[in-house]
Amino acid sequence: MKILIVGGDAAGMSAASQIKRKYPENHVVVLEATQDVSYSACTMPYSIADPDDDIERLIVRAPKEFRKIGIELHLGHFVDKIDRDKKTVSGRTTKGEEFLFSYDKLFIATGNRPFMPPIKGLDLYGVFPLKSLEHGRQIDKYLEENTVKRAVIIGMGYIGLEMCEALYSRNIEVTMVEAAPEVLGWLHKDLRNPVKKELDDKGIDYFINTKVIEIQKSGSFFTVKTEDKNFETDLVIASMGVVPNSEIAEKAGLELGPSKAIRVNTYMQTSDPDIYTAGDCACARHIITKKCVWIPLALTANRGGRVAAKNIVGEKAEFPGILGTAVFKVFDYEVARTGFNFDEAKESGFDPVEVLITTISKAHTCKNSQKIYVNMIADKKTGQVLGLFMVGKEGVARRINSGAVALHAGMKADELAEVDMAYAPPFSPVWDPVILAAGELVKKLEP
Amino acid sequence: MKILIVGGDAAGMSAASQIKRKYPENHVVVLEATQDVSYSACTMPYSIADPDDDIERLIVRAPKEFRKIGIELHLGHFVDKIDRDKKTVSGRTTKGEEFLFSYDKLFIATGNRPFMPPIKGLDLYGVFPLKSLEHGRQIDKYLEENTVKRAVIIGMGYIGLEMCEALYSRNIEVTMVEAAPEVLGWLHKDLRNPVKKELDDKGIDYFINTKVIEIQKSGSFFTVKTEDKNFETDLVIASMGVVPNSEIAEKAGLELGPSKAIRVNTYMQTSDPDIYTAGDCACARHIITKKCVWIPLALTANRGGRVAAKNIVGEKAEFPGILGTAVFKVFDYEVARTGFNFDEAKESGFDPVEVLITTISKAHTCKNSQKIYVNMIADKKTGQVLGLFMVGKEGVARRINSGAVALHAGMKADELAEVDMAYAPPFSPVWDPVILAAGELVKKLEP
Repeated sequence: MKILIVGGDAAGMSAASQIKRKYPENHVVVLEATQDVSYSACTMPYSIADPDDDIERLIVRAPKEFRKIGIELHLGHFVDKIDRDKKTVSGRTTKGEEFLFSYDKLFIATGNRPFMPPIKGLDLYGVFPLKSLEHGRQIDKYLEENTVKRAVIIGMGYIGLEMCEALYSRNIEVTMVEAAPEVLGWLHKDLRNPVKKELDDKGIDYFINTKVIEIQKSGSFFTVKTEDKNFETDLVIASMGVVPNSEIAEKAGLELGPSKAIRVNTYMQTSDPDIYTAGDCACARHIITKKCVWIPLALTANRGGRVAAKNIVGEKAEFPGILGTAVFKVFDYEVARTGFNFDEAKESGFDPVEVLITTISKAHTCKNSQKIYVNMIADKKTGQVLGLFMVGKEGVARRINSGAVALHAGMKADELAEVDMAYAPPFSPVWDPVILAAGELVKKLEP
Repeated sequence: MKILIVGGDAAGMSAASQIKRKYPENHVVVLEATQDVSYSACTMPYSIADPDDDIERLIVRAPKEFRKIGIELHLGHFVDKIDRDKKTVSGRTTKGEEFLFSYDKLFIATGNRPFMPPIKGLDLYGVFPLKSLEHGRQIDKYLEENTVKRAVIIGMGYIGLEMCEALYSRNIEVTMVEAAPEVLGWLHKDLRNPVKKELDDKGIDYFINTKVIEIQKSGSFFTVKTEDKNFETDLVIASMGVVPNSEIAEKAGLELGPSKAIRVNTYMQTSDPDIYTAGDCACARHIITKKCVWIPLALTANRGGRVAAKNIVGEKAEFPGILGTAVFKVFDYEVARTGFNFDEAKESGFDPVEVLITTISKAHTCKNSQKIYVNMIADKKTGQVLGLFMVGKEGVARRINSGAVALHAGMKADELAEVDMAYAPPFSPVWDPVILAAGELVKKLEP
């Protein structure tokens, strides 16, 4: 069977490798638009933070390693069309050559790309998004070859905040601008405030409700123009979110879902049963609502790739779904989430109840205990836990997963409150923050 | 109603406070054998580690605070008899005065005590167990008033290992002796070995299979005599485990369970419906087997105290049970467990399958990533996850709770393997150690 995979990152390469390892008799072709496959995109900010770190180090497996196991890998192959009747895909290489490949089963793993609105100057050299390894290389090179004392970051999502920390650690004065009316608007303000204070404490200037109109290059520096204010800077990072690379699917008449991500069933099949998709270009079923959502994250891509691979070769496997469980660092803070916040729960048809507690990362008798802010959400009618959000300087990142397990299991607040969790003074108060919050939620849920 | 509580630590005082706060019309009497109530016993090793730290700081609430909310608290009251027909308890105070109290409902929260086998010399001044705050004070005083350069710790359980670290940090040369044939015998050897190496690396001499026969005082130092070897030392810590303070219950004819801990139902009632118990003197139902087990831990005492309080005042509340979830530090290592190991699973009637994996605490592209050793156990027939054990220098202590939630929910390995967990390079590999281990277990469970 000829299996054609469009996109050679997390979902694509994990599927390709799995198929080749377990069913080597299949002909597996991967078409990747860039020159890179299999690298840790999420580590890029941490590599950029260190001037001595070589970003090439983030390459997990070189193309030749995939070729060695029999994957036919074509780099610099940008696919722009799927012909579902003829079962072919076509496009153009970086060198301008046209190509055409046929398939028995097609797997679209085209990922996402930075959202780049039509702002004049976003294409200037010195204005960089951060998505591909090539972007990482360009930023590294720019920082090496230019005197960068100031940077403006447009957008205050995960990537913007991680890049803020990276550039700050290189002694660059960072200014952030965010079009939305809040920083991390999805966080409850009680959890958002300590994060904002952390940015203040580090001397990061940031401006919310601030739309960039134009970026101008003036000699050796840039001017980032907004409605109210202009910012002079030596470097601009454009991190205004991402959009799915779903155009080839759309043109081929495949059904799309939220945010125009490609709609899939639990077998990772698109509306064409011979075409599969997974990763950042695809929707996934939400564990709680069972509805299609688009929350592009690395683990989802890896998980989806595996499930798609199994179904492509005829093993029956289902993708149970996602919760949007995520964690990221904002300087000394860990910010983590799983499931729905209050508003999302409401929009999903629940009657949510939430609690907000402030607790501690270690026993109160331990020195250097840090505050942990917890926001837990449950459904009033059933008591089912719908979401968990935590912020703190320690003890948050790995703790969020206990909430993720509870959400997967459909636990009620009173059940979660009674989980026998680990206690030792250096690691936790007697009542772990998660069971403490669940216990408060139980009280609030009482009629 | 007159509610009499014997024992003023975690279970007793949490029950007393809860009853007084919610139902102040009740007469609540607490009889405590020592002079201390409500202190963080678990923090004692960490306080002893620091010569400048005042152990009195570990007192969470002073007796007067409990009296202020209307609890009749008697210190230095050692109860030695329950008369179930007359519904009285009697005993003797520290000053030798006899006392007698009546009750409508009795709550036994007598905790546990260090196991002190009939070894000659265990009662010498300079040989200390560590259970009560008074023990902590004595050790502190001894370290201050004597030149302690060497210490022998008898027993290598949680407390022994925590005290090892505490004394090491005070520049005391520590030798440990353990009667059992292994250090942390309940850990799989693949997880035990890094812990043992850590002890070696810190220069801790330890001897397994080594039974202490006698301790002699010879001038300013002690000789700890074992079958094979004698150890000269300036201080001895006796941490050979604990036993439940269940004698008054036994004498009163109440049913006992494993390790002679007091048997309870899920309402925290003993075999006498007017007598409740919880905490370190009592059994608790195991979440997985629903059988009575004795695993004395702080959170269990607090949880049990709350449930007992509710039932005593007529609210109906059930204690779902425990998993023995625990974590402790061995120098730079975090050691954590929840549920059954392979042998325990077998003894509990399961047909266990286990996996052992070595993974990392951060993305492999992150610097300073540490190894994490994981042992996960499931039942072959049903796939139900039965236990999770982890050892590592970071990312273990809070991560164990995701396993605890899974065990509470009765999750199967394939369900746990599919939980959407958090990933960010500084905190985790893409596949969290827990889902990675579950995934390996799924493969092993496949027919």
